[in-house]
Amino acid sequence: MKFEVLILGNSSATPIFERHPTAQIINFNEQIFLVDCGEGTQMQLSRFGIKSNKISHIFISHLHGDHYLGLVGLLSSMNLHGRYSDLHLYGPAPLIEIINLQLKYSETTLQYNLIFHPTNSEAEELIFENNSIRVTAFPLKHRVPTTGFRFDEIQRPRALIRERIEHLNMPTVFFSRLKRGMDCVDLDGTVYRAEELTKPAPVPRSYAYCSDTRAFDAYVSSIQGVDLLYHESTFMHDMIGRAIDTLHSTSLEAAQVAKQVGAKRLLLGHYSARYRELIPLLEEAQLEFVNVELSLEGKWYKV
Amino acid sequence: MKFEVLILGNSSATPIFERHPTAQIINFNEQIFLVDCGEGTQMQLSRFGIKSNKISHIFISHLHGDHYLGLVGLLSSMNLHGRYSDLHLYGPAPLIEIINLQLKYSETTLQYNLIFHPTNSEAEELIFENNSIRVTAFPLKHRVPTTGFRFDEIQRPRALIRERIEHLNMPTVFFSRLKRGMDCVDLDGTVYRAEELTKPAPVPRSYAYCSDTRAFDAYVSSIQGVDLLYHESTFMHDMIGRAIDTLHSTSLEAAQVAKQVGAKRLLLGHYSARYRELIPLLEEAQLEFVNVELSLEGKWYKV
Repeated sequence: MKFEVLILGNSSATPIFERHPTAQIINFNEQIFLVDCGEGTQMQLSRFGIKSNKISHIFISHLHGDHYLGLVGLLSSMNLHGRYSDLHLYGPAPLIEIINLQLKYSETTLQYNLIFHPTNSEAEELIFENNSIRVTAFPLKHRVPTTGFRFDEIQRPRALIRERIEHLNMPTVFFSRLKRGMDCVDLDGTVYRAEELTKPAPVPRSYAYCSDTRAFDAYVSSIQGVDLLYHESTFMHDMIGRAIDTLHSTSLEAAQVAKQVGAKRLLLGHYSARYRELIPLLEEAQLEFVNVELSLEGKWYKV
Repeated sequence: MKFEVLILGNSSATPIFERHPTAQIINFNEQIFLVDCGEGTQMQLSRFGIKSNKISHIFISHLHGDHYLGLVGLLSSMNLHGRYSDLHLYGPAPLIEIINLQLKYSETTLQYNLIFHPTNSEAEELIFENNSIRVTAFPLKHRVPTTGFRFDEIQRPRALIRERIEHLNMPTVFFSRLKRGMDCVDLDGTVYRAEELTKPAPVPRSYAYCSDTRAFDAYVSSIQGVDLLYHESTFMHDMIGRAIDTLHSTSLEAAQVAKQVGAKRLLLGHYSARYRELIPLLEEAQLEFVNVELSLEGKWYKV
């Protein structure tokens, strides 16, 4: 089952060196989620072959322009491209006021339902769940109310082992119980053991998105043990003073967070305009944490 | 004296085929003006080597997203790039409400003065003038309040003919009078004739911007005799019904307007996403008007 992240933008505040403001696509088994939507996101989607009308849910971390200024353009283009399916939008409460004001003055009525869910930057909250994935928003520490997002695959039931089942004359009603790990007994007293007839489903995977934030705060409990952690690394550690002042993180700190929460892999991003070359940010993180990669635009990362 | 237009975006509503939403730079003798500011304008400026902090005046025609959604990002980037000089912004009154709402929630205070001048979509108005150029806003006919903009070079004084002046023992106070075409007489009764000692300045040039609009309306009086007319040509004429419904123009109509107002040259633009190839739009306009060009992104057009 596919679970991948496509980087659309890895730049911090201003676009530079062909790097764009923040946006990411998450493809979970062909459910398409967009996380943040900086200016130019609709062009990046088109460049990397993502049909915007396949996006079902959009998650906005905070109201700094480099994380959401592409949103109204994207919503309008979806409308022009004939979208009719519901679109769920999650973000800080004032986001809908900003959108509505712009739709009002452009005299635009969306043909589809835009369903807005305000996020809470004060406490972790489950914000979306279906039968395969669960999304949690959790507080980050930045200059304005900000949340990160964690995407957890839901534990699937055990799988029947076909070769062991097919010669048995077992009532099919037993299948779902066996998948849930329960043994069954038929009227003849024959016992069917879940342990023998099924195998466990793969371990559920998880992805967490942390941008923008000062490193180390309450949010580390929200991202414990994630498989893939995207953590902003706006600066290198010689700029720690600036990171503290602007409530951002350094590459070294991103790696320390990854280590602290037991993440399997770390993805760096939200690079400052001062860095044309990114390898030094990678090398700095590697001092603390081995499984680290630079997020690069147009590249898919498996969770 | 330079008077040129750089096309940053020539697409209508949605970006497609590497075409971007509307934005143009006007360089008048190194005074840099921006006309409209669709999403991605700051990236286009950077791509074509225009320093955004050199822009002194921004003119927004109307509040459809493809004409202004790049503005808040540009204003923010100017701030991050250390702008301190005043910035004058002209556009429909609600524009400042939209900007202020977004600055408020991003907790951004601009370090420079943003001076907003609301435009009037009901009547032609002189909105800016200095000693070399004059800018007029005039009503267009679109679905929301919209203005076009006309840029008129101000007639310069006559120029002294140095070779004819230098051997004369003429009081220098006469120079400015001669330049204004006035003859002068000194105390000896010697007459200095402006016609002999000066030559006329070049004929002032003019540029008009008409997007978005239905063709033919009161605005034709505002663009009489312009040297270069940018007129939207969203559709080809077989789509005239759609042009009427959406209050846009066809390529043929743009040419008819250019002819009607006695423009010297016509620049087409604001092409619909339905046209991958633009040559047919050019050819259609040429049926009516010879001096017509396609506006292409990254290309400078002399006025």
